[in-house]
Amino acid sequence: MRVAFLGLGVMGYPMAGHLAAKGHDVTVYNRTAAKAERWVQAFGKHGGKQAATPALAAVDCDIVCACVGNDDDLRAVMTGPDGAFQHAAPGTIFVDHTTASASVARELHEAARERGCHFIDAPVSGGQAGAEQGILTIMCGGDPEAFQRAEPVIAAYARAVTRIGESGAGQLAKMVNQISVAGLLQALSEAIAFGEHAGLDMRVVLDVISKGAASSWQMENRGPTMLQSKFDFGFAVDWMRKDLGLCLDEARRNGATLPVTSLVDQFYADLQQMGSSRDDTSSLIKRLRRS
Amino acid sequence: MRVAFLGLGVMGYPMAGHLAAKGHDVTVYNRTAAKAERWVQAFGKHGGKQAATPALAAVDCDIVCACVGNDDDLRAVMTGPDGAFQHAAPGTIFVDHTTASASVARELHEAARERGCHFIDAPVSGGQAGAEQGILTIMCGGDPEAFQRAEPVIAAYARAVTRIGESGAGQLAKMVNQISVAGLLQALSEAIAFGEHAGLDMRVVLDVISKGAASSWQMENRGPTMLQSKFDFGFAVDWMRKDLGLCLDEARRNGATLPVTSLVDQFYADLQQMGSSRDDTSSLIKRLRRS
Repeated sequence: MRVAFLGLGVMGYPMAGHLAAKGHDVTVYNRTAAKAERWVQAFGKHGGKQAATPALAAVDCDIVCACVGNDDDLRAVMTGPDGAFQHAAPGTIFVDHTTASASVARELHEAARERGCHFIDAPVSGGQAGAEQGILTIMCGGDPEAFQRAEPVIAAYARAVTRIGESGAGQLAKMVNQISVAGLLQALSEAIAFGEHAGLDMRVVLDVISKGAASSWQMENRGPTMLQSKFDFGFAVDWMRKDLGLCLDEARRNGATLPVTSLVDQFYADLQQMGSSRDDTSSLIKRLRRS
Repeated sequence: MRVAFLGLGVMGYPMAGHLAAKGHDVTVYNRTAAKAERWVQAFGKHGGKQAATPALAAVDCDIVCACVGNDDDLRAVMTGPDGAFQHAAPGTIFVDHTTASASVARELHEAARERGCHFIDAPVSGGQAGAEQGILTIMCGGDPEAFQRAEPVIAAYARAVTRIGESGAGQLAKMVNQISVAGLLQALSEAIAFGEHAGLDMRVVLDVISKGAASSWQMENRGPTMLQSKFDFGFAVDWMRKDLGLCLDEARRNGATLPVTSLVDQFYADLQQMGSSRDDTSSLIKRLRRS
């Protein structure tokens, strides 16, 4: 299959690599060209090559994947002057892995439809490690037929690829995921900091309570690193703030109430002020510890 | 072993039953005597019997367990006029399964010591089902020697019995557990209600995200019942409010900050006003749904 991949960040770089390793004919584009050159050096043996613009990358492709920063970056690589929509042949399927708004997904879905193409919003979870190991979870929104054609291709870097519903549903599902995580991490932070203030051996306590009703992926995987004050890894505060902004905007539209999520968003703003922008999201506990 | 069990509520009734079934010589006391009579009818074949007061139940016992409502109930059955401390022989070990304050645990630990006895705070998690199946998690605080002697006895109804630290540490660990759960349940409620407002098929969404970083015992076990609006079971809002009160009091003493926990405590107060006092704690989502 001829596939273009737009955006070689910490996620896109290994994802495009998995496509090449699976035997697809991959052309990459990255805003900073040096990174695309590095990618070609690594994956050129599989036939991987680079293009100077998203438009050139997308020529004659069956599927065009993107994984960029936000709504504006996504519009630029898709419908901008040198965007992938420019020369795309009818029938091309655009698959967007950016965590973006549901409204930009629907806007690009409509723009693709007008050109006889397809657009699937397909945000991922699983982080950098999931991208590198090819075991991401991918939540998709869009037409069922286009999803069926794209699914075996993007499965190259996924453990699970699920169509949630119509255009935008993938992004909305990702928001559900982030809302679940944000409040959970604050609860875990309050619990651990409380135990520390109380003088408990928190390794023992977490070991005991992580077998019951308080247990979570975050407690099991981030509890130990929080106890060690290790935050220089993982999913950055800046990225979470971007994602929570999308959630709060969407809630303003659909009428949902997010009291704790909006509060935790403000706590992440505190962390940005405290110089923790690049720290993992579990750094919420920093605000709660004695200095 | 001669064991007394004080308080035959939804937890204590089956816990005392496991002790009798394991061959211990069990004497029970309950404020409402009819319940103790019912217990003797069920477990008399194992030699179980009842006493008219905590003091009489504790006569000649090696271990005196209690599982009552709160700090005041606990003081009444222990150090009250007819309390278990009255005739207790030196060396008696008191084991308290009530979720109570760390300060009442330390107070009774000291009172027991003055009589040549021992007091272990040993709150449980696992709920009514855990008590019935004898698979509770028990978090203990107190002297190591007394713990070692009590542990094989209370293991009759436990999957795990852990000494967390000195007197009060069991109660503090239970508070860490409840703080973790409260904020987590609110985050899960916001996530599900957001998805419902957005028109998503939340069964599909929860199925997808419960495999990754948002996953938790609550999402897996309470997510499906929340989607069905099933709340007439489980751990009641009134009980959680009592427990969060203990957490907030303790934090006021030890200097910990609990912004989301205190907010969720207020949301539970809303639920009490809404007539949901006896509903499961997952009923937090009721506040967030369109009426």
